[in-house]
Amino acid sequence: MIDSGTRIAIPARRGKAARIREGQVITVINTHGQQVVDTWAFCARDLTEFMSMEHSRAAMEKIIPEVGDVFVTNRRRPVLQVIADTTPGIHDTLIAACDRYRYELLGCRDYHDNCADNLVAALRELGEVAPEIPSPLNLFMNIPVAGGRYVSFQPPVCAAGQSIALRARTDLIIAFSACPQDIVPINGLARAPTEAHFTVV
Amino acid sequence: MIDSGTRIAIPARRGKAARIREGQVITVINTHGQQVVDTWAFCARDLTEFMSMEHSRAAMEKIIPEVGDVFVTNRRRPVLQVIADTTPGIHDTLIAACDRYRYELLGCRDYHDNCADNLVAALRELGEVAPEIPSPLNLFMNIPVAGGRYVSFQPPVCAAGQSIALRARTDLIIAFSACPQDIVPINGLARAPTEAHFTVV
Repeated sequence: MIDSGTRIAIPARRGKAARIREGQVITVINTHGQQVVDTWAFCARDLTEFMSMEHSRAAMEKIIPEVGDVFVTNRRRPVLQVIADTTPGIHDTLIAACDRYRYELLGCRDYHDNCADNLVAALRELGEVAPEIPSPLNLFMNIPVAGGRYVSFQPPVCAAGQSIALRARTDLIIAFSACPQDIVPINGLARAPTEAHFTVV
Repeated sequence: MIDSGTRIAIPARRGKAARIREGQVITVINTHGQQVVDTWAFCARDLTEFMSMEHSRAAMEKIIPEVGDVFVTNRRRPVLQVIADTTPGIHDTLIAACDRYRYELLGCRDYHDNCADNLVAALRELGEVAPEIPSPLNLFMNIPVAGGRYVSFQPPVCAAGQSIALRARTDLIIAFSACPQDIVPINGLARAPTEAHFTVV
């Protein structure tokens, strides 16, 4: 368990996971303002139950969550609730975690850090194994849907230090990846991935 | 393998799967016009690689596919391409398959047929086991996104006999479920799930 209120780094281009008890509040801070943080939650008692974007969109009747909205698992049980958001409120539930295949298609010949591998590594630090790579909640990620059909990859609209607070609705393992995408401008026009932080209270 | 051109039923409230070779064209027919057909595709050589909505939205840069668009797998390889569509072009990539948990939340006390179980049963008929329940391509399903954020569950906009044609870009197993949802009007205002059909050429 993490000490209450301690500011934990999600290092640039890397992942970090933590064990969370029901009722605790996780605040994810966009420390430098332009960093996307891919976020997953797995139920502590059974990691095959996890936060699911496709089930949450049906439950929320939204593709972008707002304060009060509840994310649910692949068994449609509450897992995380948005209780505060000091950002302009733009997050993404539509797009897969970046992975080695994404960077190969973008022309990378050498290994590129990626959120899917970061999830696996972050859970491994806790002695856990991801049962699969669920579609993530991409905090601070700006994927507007135009005309009800078209999506585009845009820079975040956050300012440094803005944050979103999520209350755990069950005992869970939370996992983050400070997205290492530096080819498309999803982490800002500078294409320079940075660290982010979180606290647990 | 299915005989070329034979019209195969997806029975009302049930699933059906078939083995498909690369290059074959699968035409899914909304026989009675108001039926949603949940659709999955698994790579024949390794079922852990399958059509992924979250990867496909990133590849297509759309949440609703159009003729020419290519669905990709969770390893971002082409799996199905839309080559014709005689419907008004409204399909869904956002919403999870219905499952026992969905119907329990809708107040059902007894077992309710559902698309997730239909997928499992359809693959079992072929002697195969689903590695997980991927988020489906919901053919003919009408989930408009309003204001870039809000989704709603609406009846299909198809007419009887309209269809969509998908070309297999690899050897695969395709699985369908004629969605048994009869509580919300996603299968039409009559809330009366029907059969649908498909052909393979």
